[in-house]
Amino acid sequence: MEFASVEETLRKYIPENELVEVNRVLYGKPCRPLKIPDQAQSLSKDKIFELQGYEVPNVSTQSPRKVTIGLIQNQIVAPTDAPIPDQIEKLHKRIGDITEAAALCGVNILCFQEAWTMPFAFCTREKTPWTDFAESAEDGPTTKFCQQLSKKFNMVIISPILERDSTHGGVLWNTAVVISNTGSVLGKTRKNHIPRVGDFNESTYYMEGDTGHRVFQTAFGKIAVNICYGRHHPLNWMMYGVHGAEIVFNPSATVGALSEPMWPIEARCAAIANHYFTCAINRVGTETFPNEFTSGDGKAAHKDFGHFYGSSYVAAPDGTRTPGLCRTRDGLLVTTVDLNMCQQISDKWCFRMTARHDMYADALKESTSHDFKQNLIKEK
Amino acid sequence: MEFASVEETLRKYIPENELVEVNRVLYGKPCRPLKIPDQAQSLSKDKIFELQGYEVPNVSTQSPRKVTIGLIQNQIVAPTDAPIPDQIEKLHKRIGDITEAAALCGVNILCFQEAWTMPFAFCTREKTPWTDFAESAEDGPTTKFCQQLSKKFNMVIISPILERDSTHGGVLWNTAVVISNTGSVLGKTRKNHIPRVGDFNESTYYMEGDTGHRVFQTAFGKIAVNICYGRHHPLNWMMYGVHGAEIVFNPSATVGALSEPMWPIEARCAAIANHYFTCAINRVGTETFPNEFTSGDGKAAHKDFGHFYGSSYVAAPDGTRTPGLCRTRDGLLVTTVDLNMCQQISDKWCFRMTARHDMYADALKESTSHDFKQNLIKEK
Repeated sequence: MEFASVEETLRKYIPENELVEVNRVLYGKPCRPLKIPDQAQSLSKDKIFELQGYEVPNVSTQSPRKVTIGLIQNQIVAPTDAPIPDQIEKLHKRIGDITEAAALCGVNILCFQEAWTMPFAFCTREKTPWTDFAESAEDGPTTKFCQQLSKKFNMVIISPILERDSTHGGVLWNTAVVISNTGSVLGKTRKNHIPRVGDFNESTYYMEGDTGHRVFQTAFGKIAVNICYGRHHPLNWMMYGVHGAEIVFNPSATVGALSEPMWPIEARCAAIANHYFTCAINRVGTETFPNEFTSGDGKAAHKDFGHFYGSSYVAAPDGTRTPGLCRTRDGLLVTTVDLNMCQQISDKWCFRMTARHDMYADALKESTSHDFKQNLIKEK
Repeated sequence: MEFASVEETLRKYIPENELVEVNRVLYGKPCRPLKIPDQAQSLSKDKIFELQGYEVPNVSTQSPRKVTIGLIQNQIVAPTDAPIPDQIEKLHKRIGDITEAAALCGVNILCFQEAWTMPFAFCTREKTPWTDFAESAEDGPTTKFCQQLSKKFNMVIISPILERDSTHGGVLWNTAVVISNTGSVLGKTRKNHIPRVGDFNESTYYMEGDTGHRVFQTAFGKIAVNICYGRHHPLNWMMYGVHGAEIVFNPSATVGALSEPMWPIEARCAAIANHYFTCAINRVGTETFPNEFTSGDGKAAHKDFGHFYGSSYVAAPDGTRTPGLCRTRDGLLVTTVDLNMCQQISDKWCFRMTARHDMYADALKESTSHDFKQNLIKEK
């Protein structure tokens, strides 16, 4: 039997009155189901993807700043040995279809998964043919494709791709392109922390990002993108908040055996600690590659990375989170939030006011010195 | 019906084969139940407190550094209008009994809850009589009491109290005293972040701590104490790790309506992010005070702070956590861990290696300037 999600298992077995309490502790305030338009429902049925919608409850204010966020998680479409233009084209088509449903649901800001135009081939350590998936962030075919969608649907789109920067030696980066609802490229932001764990051999392909912690002022709110492994780094989350982000997207690619128990924790803790919304997106399914590779764990060579477990969700500054999308299927999660909640919760909990950043800036600086001595108290 | 814990509800209703998967996502690797000695079992029955014991599994190494941690959560014993020496004496007696059970279970390091010798009276905003609970950290009666226990049981004890520092103007602090297994006072460490939320009116009584991020080198490992509201501050957790902590205790006092959905998230996220063990301890029960007070929420004056929900737990660097103690009753949680796991997980996941602390120290410093400008990207 397929294990679709923790939420589904809880719902199946726990009596309603007790489920209320369990859900309160595990998920915070109950998110209200959104009314999904019939046309979007049909599309999700025809095109076979899960469609869930929620509104995060907030104490009402005189002028709520409601924004509807869309997150897409998906499997690759063509096999990994298909010609690369075919693989990209089929993903464009697939994501185009799901984006149409997002538009029908009134999504204002839509984010795709990390390196969405390709399989997550970095496990192979092969340069060929995978680096051929790289594109210009400014005017590559994927950016152009997203610009059309953005303009057509009046939607901000975050498009995480493998970038080739031809202006600076043609090197590769793991980059998110942010496209305004007008269809123009607002800018790009790069992955700040590159993993060296399990089969995540990305440091073979690209370096730590050099774009800092930019925040993009869109028509629908101030947003930032913390790509994948950056979710393990509290300072990375923090600096997006310092630069004013109200929503931080975390497009990711991560597999079950390695990280699944951490997944519900980290992006949600960041939402709490930084008084903003976070959006955790993970790809789905198992991707099989033409040539075998090893994993530095003594086990036999193999051709896949393991199961990407989806489970995308949105977390709010008060610790409330939506249920996750399914662990096994393509999906679109639509979430309406009130951005006023960021300031409201900051005023209530005061984590920013009590953060003592000046003390930590000095302490951290001192700790990076080669002469640093730990403050260890020993018995005399 | 009493809602004792999420864990108990899951165990009650979800079939075993599906519970394995749910628990894997929610709690990480399964913790092995510890064999609890009969004498300790009897004591927990006679004295009416919950006793749970676990071992956090680890990939074995040639020389495991096994340490057994004890956490105590408890209600106050005497009513809040009893004479203060009575209130303290009854708590000493109660904690002495539970400590005996901890000793029988082989606990090496034992931590009590925040301000354990008193009710959490800071909601009242009254100075009298509550400041009379304050004691010297170095040689107050509670420190002396703990020194006896430490020496008798060869146990490190962490004793969080309301401190009066007579050497420096007699001001109050929220302080944890760390007592070596030899019975000598290793030192003290103060609460770094003081809340201004809900009924947590502690800023009326004491200021932000001035003892930095000391780590105590004990016979059983390097430990630090992040008191209560400091758990909301990722930089606070981080600096204890920078100074070498292997276990960080988080003695707390927090109530259901406010923080319960955040409780399982924050200390656990800190364990993951910093490659060390964390121990979250919360008091239990509802404390009623003689005089009524208001909460700045427009509601009628009342005499209690709400329900302290216990739920104390231990989290490991790989994201694994123990089940929590009960939400409603006194309890002792005994957890055996292998401290080698800190370095093992650091070598595996590399969060420290990839943390870019130098970049963040500079960025953070710059952001505290009055001339700081956020890096906001706007459409041209």
